[in-house]
Amino acid sequence: MAARVPPTPKRPRKVTGRRPGRENSRGAILDAARARFARSGYEGTTIRGIAADAGVDPALVMQFYRNKEGLFLAILEQHANLTAPLRAVLAGPQEGMGARFTRAYLELWEHPISGDKLRSLIRATIGSPRATQMFQDLVKGVVTKSDIPVARRVSSALAVTHLLGAAISRYILEVPVLVELPLDELVHLVSPAIERYLNAE
Amino acid sequence: MAARVPPTPKRPRKVTGRRPGRENSRGAILDAARARFARSGYEGTTIRGIAADAGVDPALVMQFYRNKEGLFLAILEQHANLTAPLRAVLAGPQEGMGARFTRAYLELWEHPISGDKLRSLIRATIGSPRATQMFQDLVKGVVTKSDIPVARRVSSALAVTHLLGAAISRYILEVPVLVELPLDELVHLVSPAIERYLNAE
Repeated sequence: MAARVPPTPKRPRKVTGRRPGRENSRGAILDAARARFARSGYEGTTIRGIAADAGVDPALVMQFYRNKEGLFLAILEQHANLTAPLRAVLAGPQEGMGARFTRAYLELWEHPISGDKLRSLIRATIGSPRATQMFQDLVKGVVTKSDIPVARRVSSALAVTHLLGAAISRYILEVPVLVELPLDELVHLVSPAIERYLNAE
Repeated sequence: MAARVPPTPKRPRKVTGRRPGRENSRGAILDAARARFARSGYEGTTIRGIAADAGVDPALVMQFYRNKEGLFLAILEQHANLTAPLRAVLAGPQEGMGARFTRAYLELWEHPISGDKLRSLIRATIGSPRATQMFQDLVKGVVTKSDIPVARRVSSALAVTHLLGAAISRYILEVPVLVELPLDELVHLVSPAIERYLNAE
């Protein structure tokens, strides 16, 4: 029989108003939802299926996010956080910004966690007119608040369209000639076009 | 009472082995399928739903295309025909090819019929991993047969990624700053990047 060890004194827990179990459930629900949206599309996904994958009651999903739309918006908003490294590049020195922006963008897609999130989200957003509409509403809200001059918005948007197209072709459509390209080579080939857009006045 | 007019002699019909009614049904089925795939995604679409929209029996859909996969492949192959104007540009003079290619590509998306087909197809292909797989198999078949040198394939692919990204952003995601841009202005802004890729050795 093992000697009885006195229990470790418990460290006082900070009161946050939320039990950690609830936070875990939120995370599990978002992960399950993202995977379902990517696999079955926005229209083909149900709250019931998400709840089953997350191991929670459907009522809890609705308590947190109200409905499928609320859940998708929560994922879209989480996605906005992914762009922090890009905003950091744009706030940095102008010289060499094209190459740094291209690398930062493609590294988001290369990374196993953020890459998986982006693939799921882009698949669901483009795959369903309803999901596209929610994305548009979100973007319009952000753009209206932005104070970037219009000419600059156009050229920044064109830089992003190029990178989005490259990412969709390499990481979603998996066009062989692009998948086989080492990341450094891809950054090297695409950077000049991005540089040109980001330097446009 | 109208005077009796002798019946117009019937012109001998060419025997083609197919009744025109069947060809109309094929067209109606493909149109219905494209609309369903775009609205409900690949996973959310059923043969039964397509047959109902096309006003035919589900058995006829299966007789023509076997299953949902066969139907999607038929649409993908039809889509390959859309690229004829692009191939014509690539076979033409090198000078100014970037601008002509950019315009020819974006005009496919601007046109009410081909634009609608492209939107449906891109939505369905990106929206479902299974549909993406079918697209990949088709592309691999085409690329294996192609005799373009690898370096040139990479730069052509990069030109297409840029245009695909621009088209998705303008015609599917409808990013406001790009939707508001007149087509000529968009062609003017994007052409230099496309020119550079198409002239790369």
